[in-house]
Amino acid sequence: MAKLTGNLMFGQSGGPTSVINASAAGVFIEALGQDCIPKVYGAANGIRGILDEKFYDMGQEDMAELELLKTTPSSALGSVRYKLADPDKDPTDYLRLLEVFKKYDIRYFFYNGGNDSMDTCNKISKFMQKSGYECIVMGVPKTIDNDLAATDHCPGFSSAAKYIATSTMEVYLDARVYDTPMVCVLEVMGRNAGWLTAATSLASLKGHGPDLIYLPEKAFDKDDFLASARKAYEKNHGKLIVAVSEGIKDKNGTYISEYGSDLAKEKDSFGHAQLGGTGAVVADMLKKELKCKARAIEFSLLQRCAAHCGSAADVEETFTAGRKAVQFAVEGVTDHMVAYERKMVDGKYVCDYKLVNLSEVANTEKTIPMSWIKEDNTGLTQEFYDYALPLIAGESKPPMVDGLPRFAQLKKVLATK
Amino acid sequence: MAKLTGNLMFGQSGGPTSVINASAAGVFIEALGQDCIPKVYGAANGIRGILDEKFYDMGQEDMAELELLKTTPSSALGSVRYKLADPDKDPTDYLRLLEVFKKYDIRYFFYNGGNDSMDTCNKISKFMQKSGYECIVMGVPKTIDNDLAATDHCPGFSSAAKYIATSTMEVYLDARVYDTPMVCVLEVMGRNAGWLTAATSLASLKGHGPDLIYLPEKAFDKDDFLASARKAYEKNHGKLIVAVSEGIKDKNGTYISEYGSDLAKEKDSFGHAQLGGTGAVVADMLKKELKCKARAIEFSLLQRCAAHCGSAADVEETFTAGRKAVQFAVEGVTDHMVAYERKMVDGKYVCDYKLVNLSEVANTEKTIPMSWIKEDNTGLTQEFYDYALPLIAGESKPPMVDGLPRFAQLKKVLATK
Repeated sequence: MAKLTGNLMFGQSGGPTSVINASAAGVFIEALGQDCIPKVYGAANGIRGILDEKFYDMGQEDMAELELLKTTPSSALGSVRYKLADPDKDPTDYLRLLEVFKKYDIRYFFYNGGNDSMDTCNKISKFMQKSGYECIVMGVPKTIDNDLAATDHCPGFSSAAKYIATSTMEVYLDARVYDTPMVCVLEVMGRNAGWLTAATSLASLKGHGPDLIYLPEKAFDKDDFLASARKAYEKNHGKLIVAVSEGIKDKNGTYISEYGSDLAKEKDSFGHAQLGGTGAVVADMLKKELKCKARAIEFSLLQRCAAHCGSAADVEETFTAGRKAVQFAVEGVTDHMVAYERKMVDGKYVCDYKLVNLSEVANTEKTIPMSWIKEDNTGLTQEFYDYALPLIAGESKPPMVDGLPRFAQLKKVLATK
Repeated sequence: MAKLTGNLMFGQSGGPTSVINASAAGVFIEALGQDCIPKVYGAANGIRGILDEKFYDMGQEDMAELELLKTTPSSALGSVRYKLADPDKDPTDYLRLLEVFKKYDIRYFFYNGGNDSMDTCNKISKFMQKSGYECIVMGVPKTIDNDLAATDHCPGFSSAAKYIATSTMEVYLDARVYDTPMVCVLEVMGRNAGWLTAATSLASLKGHGPDLIYLPEKAFDKDDFLASARKAYEKNHGKLIVAVSEGIKDKNGTYISEYGSDLAKEKDSFGHAQLGGTGAVVADMLKKELKCKARAIEFSLLQRCAAHCGSAADVEETFTAGRKAVQFAVEGVTDHMVAYERKMVDGKYVCDYKLVNLSEVANTEKTIPMSWIKEDNTGLTQEFYDYALPLIAGESKPPMVDGLPRFAQLKKVLATK
């Protein structure tokens, strides 16, 4: 079968990760070497950039800078949170995309993101088919949340997990230096899936992990929690570390962060209001129950952009997934996302690459199996450790110049017609 | 002159740093090799451990674990915040220390900490002299705050600065991925000295620094700030990053974090109270002024324990300062702290070691020279860059096993008599 000849458009979507640009590097470097793809474009702010006809000619970039994308965190092209309408109800955006695709002879469309983005891919592909415009559409996975279906894990998760586990170990040591009580609550990202919060448990393998871990997958019961907390606090002579996912909810489905509203009226001795997010609410519960100081630490944006503490496995797999997506596409594959398949070869973890149908991934969420959460809801089982440990193997960080990271500097030459 | 023969006691005091144990490694490894020091003890929780007769026999430890202390963050022996009374008013603790020193033949007392700890050293030394008990007393500097007098910089500062600058660069990239407004406030440690907050400016050298930086050294004026913020926000098309020290105050000496008390009554659309520390208060100001979302990020404990992102210069200097302290002491030096002296050799930064009298350091605080802060109070001048850049050179991190740090594991064999 003759390869489809035409230009390639790549866009980044949703929240950034430390390795999101490794996907871009894989797609760009592979695509620039393909004869059937004369021009490779990178959309500024994802779908938005295509609608606005604002995208960069990646052929103008130096190869060395494209290589540096592997260790440059956060979407280098700019990202977007833009949900396309149902094309049957409002085809405006789709018609505009078709217009731009025709104008620039885009025959390969690659979109990098989570389940929303895979849905976007899917809708665009269906519309192009209906319009009789030949265009290969490929999804490139990305999310620290690790909640994409049909893939063993997601690009970006492993590096975030490594950073979280490492920082948890460090905070653990810091939070028990004094001979006085010390209570610390770590708040980790994840509204509905607890993968990242679970990563704090990896620190336990080194003896430096949280005493209690709460994920959104299981209902959070305040009374049970306080009983477990008191037990651990007393056993550890006044030391306690708790990790909570930002998205933990009680059995009625109320976010624990919303409990904050009752507490907002209360102030500490300085007259400060004492609340912020979930971590702060939980720290406040502990302060009252244990009559001690309690500190909340949010990993915040740091957990999704800390390329200085990346997983080498993650960077390599993410880059390879980008290349594979192009290789599959030029072979004629369309409407698929590249996914990871875990294989054990001679007892060693190996990552293989496979294709999954976009409709299988779009808008579905993969959470942690309930059997991996301890019966008493205080932590993770061996299954999680076995799953996560190979993913955080090896260290990746950007090249350092003058003691600071050297990130990619793209020229970002706007494409013109 | 004959060397004083007797045992050595080393204690860690105050807040931990990523390299505090490099001081300990230097003292222990050097002291264990000195013939005039038969026993080397490490106090559990600083002065508290001596008073309670709880300290470890460091000769029982494996040399490989002592070497690992160089890259193990947070006080491995335990720390303490305990201020000794004025010995003329209440000599109880001093008499107890003397008793323990006599019982264990402690002839070398080393204390690792900031200006409070140097004061403790000083008082103990004077008391021992008055009591006719021969004991050499040495201070070993430590503080991420970098506020010790009479030393070019402080062990622990450089690694914290490197972590802060690196994380600032990463957050900068993360905080501008979308084509929508994004305002981010970074809160950095430092009640009275702005050295750490100033370190965010190093990210500007790579084009990824905060737009505005506020230190405790200069009064914070809300109106000036909001005017500068609006200007930067508009110039950057809705992007703004501000770094603030936790200790910024207005011209009346009121901490900006205390402004929170007025705001505590206000809630967001979820009914959450919106405040925490200084960063949250400043983010709230910006939210109201610019009518946009604003996020506060606290580096919190992470900035003082992130050994995974340490400065190689810091680790090496800190270790060497520990060794030097022992070398000076066995030569008969007492009542001094080891300090750093910056030298330029062939245009290159070199760290030299010198001695400063404890009374010179005790209870004094070194803040950033006013001439290093920009006239309009929005950032730092070239002088600060020249000062700080050599300090963050080179990368240090713990050895990694299974993708996670391998920290020192001490046996902690309690000393007995």
